[in-house]
Amino acid sequence: MKKVGVAILGLGVVGGGTYKILKEHRDFYRANHGIDITVEGVLEINRERALALGVEEEKIASNIAEICSNPEVDIVIEVMGGVEPAKTFVLSALNAGKSVVTSNKELYCKYSHVLEKVAKKNNCGLFYEASCVGGVPVIRALLDNLQGNKITSLIGIINGTTNYILTKMSSAGAAYKDVLKEAQKLGYAEADPTADVEGYDASYKLSILSSIAFHTKVPYTEIYREGITEVSAEDISYGNRLGYTLKLLAIGKCGGNGIEVRVHPAFVKKGHPLAGVNDSYNAVYISGDSVEDVMLYGRGAGALPTGSAIVGDVIYCATHNGFNYSTFENSETAAPSTKFVKNFESSYYLRLAAADKAGVLSKVTAIFSKYGISMAEVKQYTEVNNGEVPLILITHTTYENNIKKAVTDVNSTNVAKVVSVIRAI
Amino acid sequence: MKKVGVAILGLGVVGGGTYKILKEHRDFYRANHGIDITVEGVLEINRERALALGVEEEKIASNIAEICSNPEVDIVIEVMGGVEPAKTFVLSALNAGKSVVTSNKELYCKYSHVLEKVAKKNNCGLFYEASCVGGVPVIRALLDNLQGNKITSLIGIINGTTNYILTKMSSAGAAYKDVLKEAQKLGYAEADPTADVEGYDASYKLSILSSIAFHTKVPYTEIYREGITEVSAEDISYGNRLGYTLKLLAIGKCGGNGIEVRVHPAFVKKGHPLAGVNDSYNAVYISGDSVEDVMLYGRGAGALPTGSAIVGDVIYCATHNGFNYSTFENSETAAPSTKFVKNFESSYYLRLAAADKAGVLSKVTAIFSKYGISMAEVKQYTEVNNGEVPLILITHTTYENNIKKAVTDVNSTNVAKVVSVIRAI
Repeated sequence: MKKVGVAILGLGVVGGGTYKILKEHRDFYRANHGIDITVEGVLEINRERALALGVEEEKIASNIAEICSNPEVDIVIEVMGGVEPAKTFVLSALNAGKSVVTSNKELYCKYSHVLEKVAKKNNCGLFYEASCVGGVPVIRALLDNLQGNKITSLIGIINGTTNYILTKMSSAGAAYKDVLKEAQKLGYAEADPTADVEGYDASYKLSILSSIAFHTKVPYTEIYREGITEVSAEDISYGNRLGYTLKLLAIGKCGGNGIEVRVHPAFVKKGHPLAGVNDSYNAVYISGDSVEDVMLYGRGAGALPTGSAIVGDVIYCATHNGFNYSTFENSETAAPSTKFVKNFESSYYLRLAAADKAGVLSKVTAIFSKYGISMAEVKQYTEVNNGEVPLILITHTTYENNIKKAVTDVNSTNVAKVVSVIRAI
Repeated sequence: MKKVGVAILGLGVVGGGTYKILKEHRDFYRANHGIDITVEGVLEINRERALALGVEEEKIASNIAEICSNPEVDIVIEVMGGVEPAKTFVLSALNAGKSVVTSNKELYCKYSHVLEKVAKKNNCGLFYEASCVGGVPVIRALLDNLQGNKITSLIGIINGTTNYILTKMSSAGAAYKDVLKEAQKLGYAEADPTADVEGYDASYKLSILSSIAFHTKVPYTEIYREGITEVSAEDISYGNRLGYTLKLLAIGKCGGNGIEVRVHPAFVKKGHPLAGVNDSYNAVYISGDSVEDVMLYGRGAGALPTGSAIVGDVIYCATHNGFNYSTFENSETAAPSTKFVKNFESSYYLRLAAADKAGVLSKVTAIFSKYGISMAEVKQYTEVNNGEVPLILITHTTYENNIKKAVTDVNSTNVAKVVSVIRAI
């Protein structure tokens, strides 16, 4: 039977889950794949944590060199997160001829061009299904299943923390800060939640997914990014009443004008498959010119779901011949011919505080009309607050720049102020 | 640039779609995969159809031998459907050293053991992503992504025709026969709809998916099969009122008692991701011991979505080294140790016509209670019809055999008759 030795760098949540899966399924993989996967080394500063998981003392390495020089190790699993020292360790492993399986979205997003070059040079595999959307098989779907298509768009709910927070804000009518605190208590949000709530995590993943989908490197620095910290319970509630649910979306589009990539809160019309993706579930909705629409849904994070993706890559690596790499020039920047669209098109939800008197609506809509923006829906509510009433506008598709101009014009009138602008799909 | 010649057997809906995709994307594949895919031959009785698609006269083969002896052909795409002559043609192609990509669920389900043996012997690839759920990447997800898991269940809406009919019956309150006629007019159902509406098509697909998921051949003959022809608009309507939507489900489970495989109409509680899969959309909801729940959703049929899966397989075949085959003994029957569970567990919806008098409910529920069946919900409606009122029962999980006994007992009373029994998830 083929022996496959793995080493795990980092025994945090995902590393621990991966270790457990490999240990508990060893006989299952022997029986069904004819491969005997054993953990031949771990690198974990916290020795107690490793021992508590059941790692034998002699398998705990003191440094990366021990892992790299261990001939029993065929595949190195990197689940430390962050750029350094993960990058140095992954490069060491590749240079030592080990294939690498990683869940590290930040590392892969920022340095895929460096890592892949070294992997190729050493004839090693580099697998990263676990870097995006946990156990949901989206990377391989893009790499292997949908390559017959020109992918026109992918829209993802790809961050579990923010989806949990927005779902709770929506169901409980609670404020962002209160829900965040609760999420931190439950372990759904980190003590420093910046990477999640400001959309960095989602933009790393969107960079990875868009690069594969659109056949050119899409640097995360090209992604328009807006987090959920400014989202108000009021807007979620007004949106709900109009049949919309608020999500942090990662949107990638590719068409005649170029590539458009953005992460921001957006209202999703109920009935759209993404509207029903709640709590810490994630999903990616992909449209291609042949396949039409496909949605992949599941747990986007967590020890075992992410571990499932890692172990899937380990088995794939061990049971397939040769390795495949990016089909595009995997460089630090996009191909020179690539244009990134910044003035993107969208529908918009706008909440205005309007003077409680006749003629306001006509004045306001005249401004939007001036910029060629037509309305899909208009709601005037009767809750008077300081002499002002909420006026909700939902526009048809228009350009971002036009909305900005219209908002400036509205704010310079004395009859209404724009309180919030939220994109919609 | 690597040249890849393909031949297409059958230019029906899927064959025509595949031809169009390959033609229109030729430059796209050259640019992004460095492969030049050309159609070097087609086999199609209807020459006019081939010419109308733009196939050059000299590429239309007269027989399979011409395709097999053509050195320009590397990959044969079989999209004829049915067992013969598809089986003979596929075997000829494999024996001539051509890899095969097929969308033929009936052929692969019934003869995977034969085809794979010949593919292995000739060191050829055998790809069948398009055989199940059109453009939805479920085969490769099971083969390559989820292998780290013990898959505990898969529940699919994997037949577009029946899902279209049930969705229309539900939204329009229309009878099966009327909706079927409309579906036939629109091309969603065949003139002879038996394969779809009686659940054969779904059972072929379930056989293929379960075999991969559960690591042993699951012959379609082991699948309990019940179609949608007896479904009534009344039951759909009563179910809707209680928050259920009716679907033709293909269910595969694998646990301590063995493997359970069945295709039948079932009520799905609204809020379950499968409940929102409407019209001709399909989805497969997979649960594994590590990944938890994953759902793959999209177009389960159609020229271009199915063509997308075929072309995905062609590109995979052309750009990967070596071929992988089933990880289980791919034989005609299941492994000798496999047990198939026939007395399966489920919730049940029952509609009774009950005498419109006091004490009936107590009598009826006493019978169910005798067999250990407890009720999740009971509804007595007031529409009196011939002195009878509808009584709807929804049970907690129980055994199929117990339900059968209880139904017999109820029918032998003089206070109620069971009109319909529908399983529920």
